[in-house]
Amino acid sequence: MLAVGTTQTARIDGISAAGADPDIMVHTPSADAEIVAYGEPIRAPVVPVSPTGCPTPAVVTRAVRDVLGFDLTVVDAGLAEPTGAPTVTVGARAGSDIREPDPVSTAPGAFAAAREFGRSLPDDEVYLAESIPGGTTTALGVQAALGERGGVSSSLLENPVEQKREVVAEGLETSGLDEGELAGEPQEAVRRMGDPVLAVVAGTALGCLESDTAVTLAGGTQLATVAALLRHAGVDRTVDLATTSFVADDPSVDLDGLADALDLSVTVTDPEFEAGDHPAFDGYAAGEAKEGVGMGGALAMAATAGVPMADLRERVLERYRQLPFDA
Amino acid sequence: MLAVGTTQTARIDGISAAGADPDIMVHTPSADAEIVAYGEPIRAPVVPVSPTGCPTPAVVTRAVRDVLGFDLTVVDAGLAEPTGAPTVTVGARAGSDIREPDPVSTAPGAFAAAREFGRSLPDDEVYLAESIPGGTTTALGVQAALGERGGVSSSLLENPVEQKREVVAEGLETSGLDEGELAGEPQEAVRRMGDPVLAVVAGTALGCLESDTAVTLAGGTQLATVAALLRHAGVDRTVDLATTSFVADDPSVDLDGLADALDLSVTVTDPEFEAGDHPAFDGYAAGEAKEGVGMGGALAMAATAGVPMADLRERVLERYRQLPFDA
Repeated sequence: MLAVGTTQTARIDGISAAGADPDIMVHTPSADAEIVAYGEPIRAPVVPVSPTGCPTPAVVTRAVRDVLGFDLTVVDAGLAEPTGAPTVTVGARAGSDIREPDPVSTAPGAFAAAREFGRSLPDDEVYLAESIPGGTTTALGVQAALGERGGVSSSLLENPVEQKREVVAEGLETSGLDEGELAGEPQEAVRRMGDPVLAVVAGTALGCLESDTAVTLAGGTQLATVAALLRHAGVDRTVDLATTSFVADDPSVDLDGLADALDLSVTVTDPEFEAGDHPAFDGYAAGEAKEGVGMGGALAMAATAGVPMADLRERVLERYRQLPFDA
Repeated sequence: MLAVGTTQTARIDGISAAGADPDIMVHTPSADAEIVAYGEPIRAPVVPVSPTGCPTPAVVTRAVRDVLGFDLTVVDAGLAEPTGAPTVTVGARAGSDIREPDPVSTAPGAFAAAREFGRSLPDDEVYLAESIPGGTTTALGVQAALGERGGVSSSLLENPVEQKREVVAEGLETSGLDEGELAGEPQEAVRRMGDPVLAVVAGTALGCLESDTAVTLAGGTQLATVAALLRHAGVDRTVDLATTSFVADDPSVDLDGLADALDLSVTVTDPEFEAGDHPAFDGYAAGEAKEGVGMGGALAMAATAGVPMADLRERVLERYRQLPFDA
């Protein structure tokens, strides 16, 4: 399950690398969904790349899907631009800037609809993933509202931590909230300081857990923030999180600390993208992008299925070469 | 690609067996999409069965998907009730009764958007399927508007051919049309005498053919009517159609005649559902349901892949037993 959405928080200069610039970035989740669904963008006008040209992790997730053939369900968690990928509707709308007073007014409704959706899924096991530019800043906002202090990663090489903290502080002030004031109120925390993707992923996860569908949070610190939301919703069992070695190696993230604080069972998978092997890998090897679109979860699935990483890298490059960068 | 939609033509008493009664039938396409996507209905409140209890062909298509793992894209071609299946949006709305003057006003827009969608699909090969109660009557309406005389099958044991002809005659009269008056105007024929699913499947097929994606029309006489629409849109190459032995054996259909008239390369697959083997098969063995939701196409894929029909029947029954008939 891939939740795709947007927040205007991503328009703040310097906050996200999930697209070449803010006007293009708003298409990233729509394009990511298409890449995982079809292998390439079909309606979105861009192939998402960072400002330096690092390709979206959607390519990696799609490459794993090529090999393993897992089912995909995309949920519209507040897209601002159309997608040609099939999507499930749960009433989410694009999020506003968290420095505004009520940036995610659809959060409670989308959470409830996603929970019902998660409850009704007949699957034994579901991996939950996200694509939302600016999503680590809104995740930091939710952590602050809940009183959690895990910290967040970044799609940028240099995590603009100070800037994110300032945005979050301003958001708390606008909303008249102290840090931790929304502990135990996960839906309200997302509504006031988060983004619609967090509402949808947390709601789906809760619904899955309530109906005995095993859940793996497939992502980095945004998905760890979903785990925090689940804790504040009363879930007390250990939660699985599968992420990449790039998040584990991120000096701005204490993944072990997060795992301890949130009782996460963490799987870290290294796709062994070496600098110099191919330009598509250089950004990752340097520490850009790191995670997103379920990349860490997909890599974990591939590793569990015994797919050699060398084969997977070859498949990633085949997919990369087919992308219409000049479209 | 499964196009799911509705037409109020289905509310005419005695016209369709795609649901136990008209109030339940309106959920059939939503539920069919969920069954192919997830294995069972997750949001739709029904498991579609005919008035005698014959289960929807969606179960067969899903069973093939279990075995072969083919990708699925559902297009919302005018649903009237929500679905939990992910859907692509092309601007189609539920169709009105063809005895009204402009029953499918969204047909040209949906046709154009579906054509663009079909053009943009990167696949080498696409199977196109439908689920729309009442769809053979609207298909007959389109044939009449185009001046084609192929005839249509039925989900009922006894095809209410006379009733369908009367409905079509009344529709032509309301629209002030003579038979054949819309030859060469496929979009207008669908708009005045058809249903939104025909618009979406024909548009998608045309877009695929224009971009060198091979197309198999996966269905019976409704999909043959799509072939007629393609002919009237200027497509002159042979078109593949894959259907079931139940359609081929339907005494009210001259499948060979249709194939000759429309230059169709027809594949017929027999799932060997024997009466008495299991109640789920009895209706099919007697001649109910016959086709729909891509059943004939899915069976053809399974046969091509060398899946033994006995294994597939076992898988169909496993899926059938898991359905929440008492929900």
